[in-house]
Amino acid sequence: MSKPKVLIASRPGPEVEAMLEDAPSEFEICFLPDGEKLGDHISDVEVLYGAIHEADFSKANALRWVQQPFVGVEWARYPAFRDSDVSLVNSRVLYGPQIAEHAFALLLSLTRGIVTQLDFMRHKHWEWTPCIEIAGMTMGILGLGGIGRAVAVRAKAFDLKVIAVDKEPVEKPDTVDQLGQMDSLQEFLSQTDILMVCCPITPETHKLLSHEQFNAMPEGSYIVNVSRGRVVDEEAMIAALDSGKLAGAGLDVTYTEPYPENGPLWMRPNVILASHTAGASQNIGKRAMSLFIENLHHDLKGEPLVNTVDKQKGY
Amino acid sequence: MSKPKVLIASRPGPEVEAMLEDAPSEFEICFLPDGEKLGDHISDVEVLYGAIHEADFSKANALRWVQQPFVGVEWARYPAFRDSDVSLVNSRVLYGPQIAEHAFALLLSLTRGIVTQLDFMRHKHWEWTPCIEIAGMTMGILGLGGIGRAVAVRAKAFDLKVIAVDKEPVEKPDTVDQLGQMDSLQEFLSQTDILMVCCPITPETHKLLSHEQFNAMPEGSYIVNVSRGRVVDEEAMIAALDSGKLAGAGLDVTYTEPYPENGPLWMRPNVILASHTAGASQNIGKRAMSLFIENLHHDLKGEPLVNTVDKQKGY
Repeated sequence: MSKPKVLIASRPGPEVEAMLEDAPSEFEICFLPDGEKLGDHISDVEVLYGAIHEADFSKANALRWVQQPFVGVEWARYPAFRDSDVSLVNSRVLYGPQIAEHAFALLLSLTRGIVTQLDFMRHKHWEWTPCIEIAGMTMGILGLGGIGRAVAVRAKAFDLKVIAVDKEPVEKPDTVDQLGQMDSLQEFLSQTDILMVCCPITPETHKLLSHEQFNAMPEGSYIVNVSRGRVVDEEAMIAALDSGKLAGAGLDVTYTEPYPENGPLWMRPNVILASHTAGASQNIGKRAMSLFIENLHHDLKGEPLVNTVDKQKGY
Repeated sequence: MSKPKVLIASRPGPEVEAMLEDAPSEFEICFLPDGEKLGDHISDVEVLYGAIHEADFSKANALRWVQQPFVGVEWARYPAFRDSDVSLVNSRVLYGPQIAEHAFALLLSLTRGIVTQLDFMRHKHWEWTPCIEIAGMTMGILGLGGIGRAVAVRAKAFDLKVIAVDKEPVEKPDTVDQLGQMDSLQEFLSQTDILMVCCPITPETHKLLSHEQFNAMPEGSYIVNVSRGRVVDEEAMIAALDSGKLAGAGLDVTYTEPYPENGPLWMRPNVILASHTAGASQNIGKRAMSLFIENLHHDLKGEPLVNTVDKQKGY
């Protein structure tokens, strides 16, 4: 009898591949050859490390579960996959450290005048400018998953009051002072000096932050988005930046990516656009592979997989 | 009998001045009139809020103590003041929050590619670039005073190993994993992926970080300086940046300020210069005044002043 087949859809580099020596030998582990199509190699695969689109999924006759080395699962909404018995695992929590670092990079670059100073440097100009201290402010975390929690830990150390809302009845960590559900969003926003967008994109969060939501925020507040651009109604956000309601926006993500050349967010001194790089890290490949290997062991023993996604909910 | 006179050398703005209602009424509180010289108003002053230079000090016949609303006390080295009985109080600790925020702004702007992304923005360019995750790295804090401690709290939340050296036998806070004295500097530097310069400038720390010290650090490490530029031998730092020993430098301060137009640090992609703005904060004026009022009360009761400086040591 042949071993159950595991396919790794893109080569993660020698250091990460070497980790596969710790995978259970009961699996046959294959790599999709460079330049070849997933659909041509998927028919007898039981476990896929990567993502699978609709056309290829129709050829996947043996697939039991898919694990992806990233977080957002928007690709997985098509009914054939969503309503199938194939399990989906993502890499949430593993992305917490670097995305939280990125969120603070965006926030502090705005509050500490780094944008201005870098501009000064190009003109060899040295000038003291005022900066904002965030200690004592209230940070509102929209979405208290793996990323939101990693942000909360750091926010508490920066002496912020930390409040959060989440759609799910998640447990309140000690680093969060106050946790509400989505029906308290407006009240939450009214207290939020610094809004950290950390929720997944779903039909319910699409353009969740629009005129009414920005209007609820205190004058001169900040928004940092490290999840998905489509959570934000960009026209409403720009109006809030224009009116001074928002003092700045740190955006790793935008509604359309790449951000269009004629878009209005370029060149604004109180906006940072960061090309969807929040997940970048020299460590993430290893962390994600480590979880995959752990799940192969769980699978072999008939134990539940770690980090499965509710495909109907989309997170 | 007239009340003891307190002189405030520069007007701190209406909101901060209003706080003086809580000062003990036993003092006569005056402001140095705009455009007038300190020397013309100092003769009968017992307490000064500000700094005093040598020429004016010779006219200060009644001065008992000086409190300054900032940290560094380089101005206070002249022997007439240093060896006098006049006490000096600074605002250390109070500057911890904003300077720690600034230190992380500089560090994370380097590691998370914010410098690159802001440069992209000017060209309306959107491109994913690799970033560095700092979690798991070792931060070395040179000088564990009020600022170093505030940095340590935040570093721990970023999941860094935190090590520190200090000249004084200071107590090790829980946020610091390992604390050594100055004779272990080279060993400390050999472990330091991220060097945070938080020590005062004194004759002993002048160009303390030179070739030998940078050479001891791991390849690809970072330096952030939020204390004084003269602690660093800039020529040696530039050599370390050129060789790749240092991956980046976030410098709020430089050896000469303003940084000279023909200096070699402008335009380097892995350097941020930030015009000595780390202390800037919308809250610092109030915090500093609050300590001054507290000290006026202590003085009245014959209690020791808070935050006195050892004038011989210079911190």
